Amino acid sequence: MNAHTWARILQVTPGFRLADVDPDSTPGYEGGKTAGKADLATGLEELSGLQEQLFAESRSGVAKDAVLLVLQAMDSAGKGGIVRHVVGGVDPQGVALTAFKAPTEQERAHDFLWRVERRLPEPGFIGVFDRSHYEDVLIARVRALAPAEEIERRYDAINDFEARVAGSGIRIVKVMLHISPDEQKERLMERLDRADKHWKYNPGDVDERMLWPDYMAAYQTAIDRTSTETAPWHVIPANHKWYARLAVQELLLAALLDIDPQWPAADFDVEAEKERLAAS
Amino acid sequence: MNAHTWARILQVTPGFRLADVDPDSTPGYEGGKTAGKADLATGLEELSGLQEQLFAESRSGVAKDAVLLVLQAMDSAGKGGIVRHVVGGVDPQGVALTAFKAPTEQERAHDFLWRVERRLPEPGFIGVFDRSHYEDVLIARVRALAPAEEIERRYDAINDFEARVAGSGIRIVKVMLHISPDEQKERLMERLDRADKHWKYNPGDVDERMLWPDYMAAYQTAIDRTSTETAPWHVIPANHKWYARLAVQELLLAALLDIDPQWPAADFDVEAEKERLAAS
Repeated sequence: MNAHTWARILQVTPGFRLADVDPDSTPGYEGGKTAGKADLATGLEELSGLQEQLFAESRSGVAKDAVLLVLQAMDSAGKGGIVRHVVGGVDPQGVALTAFKAPTEQERAHDFLWRVERRLPEPGFIGVFDRSHYEDVLIARVRALAPAEEIERRYDAINDFEARVAGSGIRIVKVMLHISPDEQKERLMERLDRADKHWKYNPGDVDERMLWPDYMAAYQTAIDRTSTETAPWHVIPANHKWYARLAVQELLLAALLDIDPQWPAADFDVEAEKERLAAS
Repeated sequence: MNAHTWARILQVTPGFRLADVDPDSTPGYEGGKTAGKADLATGLEELSGLQEQLFAESRSGVAKDAVLLVLQAMDSAGKGGIVRHVVGGVDPQGVALTAFKAPTEQERAHDFLWRVERRLPEPGFIGVFDRSHYEDVLIARVRALAPAEEIERRYDAINDFEARVAGSGIRIVKVMLHISPDEQKERLMERLDRADKHWKYNPGDVDERMLWPDYMAAYQTAIDRTSTETAPWHVIPANHKWYARLAVQELLLAALLDIDPQWPAADFDVEAEKERLAAS
């Protein structure tokens, strides 16, 4: 199965229901964990090569292509593992990673998209958002951090924003990693069981967990309202970490294959430079 | 040999002469390329583990430790390879990489350290400078981009700056990758020979190459003037890429072992959280 087929299978379509997605499933993939890990390793080489071409292409100053991976998920769903094992496989020189936290006072003084705009990837880069402007319609909705009409306004604002971003040459790959509440419980319990994992645990995680149905409803609404042709959502079953990593890698591959970056032609006389270098 | 021994061997001492360093040598290492690559892979695991502990420690909000790797070198000496193969081995979530280019108009309007200050790593991070404020006493000196008295001023300014940075908890690891002119010629020629490497070549590289002795003199002066106890220089023979990567890895390991980061203790009641989670 090629990357574009994966992208099509994982992309949400009209009538999509989050509740129908089985977090244990591995859509489009026949193999198990062992095959999945091997395929991940193979894919990383391809991804790495395409990333270098994307970066090279941008050096010409003409190509404006970039990729933006937007990662959203409930706690412990595996965003960190995606960054480590998928994004971590390409040259750090071509990656621009932002982990969005609760907004600072300065950030709150601006429109919610202000801090996001500042972190968009430059041409040639793979940008990664670990959390994003979607927090402003997810936790913000569930926790009523903004008035209802402001949340309403944001869906359209996001669509306008993403359309402009896509128009500027940035392929937006929006991903929700979808785990089950039981799987989350196991993963959080493991953090509590191991002293070297305590730092990853926050009592607030359980508070959010108790609002699971509200979060799922907020995700459903966000997906309904902001899955557009230029920037569709992909919901990835994530109870199997190896599957989620492989799937995100395929989505990145599909985006890069769409861009189809080319090695830029030399903007100097190669033979003349060889002579000049030889004589130096 | 442990990391601290490497660090001691590679650290410049009073009376250091750059001209005496053989770029083909592999000081402190008995093995060859095969063993070197194997040791690099082993070391990456240790580095990766220490980096995670450094990151975890900083989450407590108390520890202020960070590492800053400053990479300087002539073109094609292997800075990119260090970033890709040494830094690229640790979790991207804990790395803050900056590739400094020729300063923009806005940057030039400020003191030369302004843009550097803004890119210092936050606690818990490994910052990497691919080129740095040292360009302001290297190419700036060779190309007379600033008046001689301004260049003079900068050495002391750098020392003051780095002392303050080190005092704030950032271990500064300054590295010059040292290749020979012949090795550079080969590497640049390879870029000219391969269409997929043309984007890495810039005719200006040969212009700088022709000023090799001036650059070596500028490096010698910079090293003499800014190798301090808190932020010493390390000159790494870099004709053998595998050696340079291993050596930089050992310097990072030494810095992290000095910091000796600890898993932070839980700031919550672990047993109470287990019960709360189990009940959720």
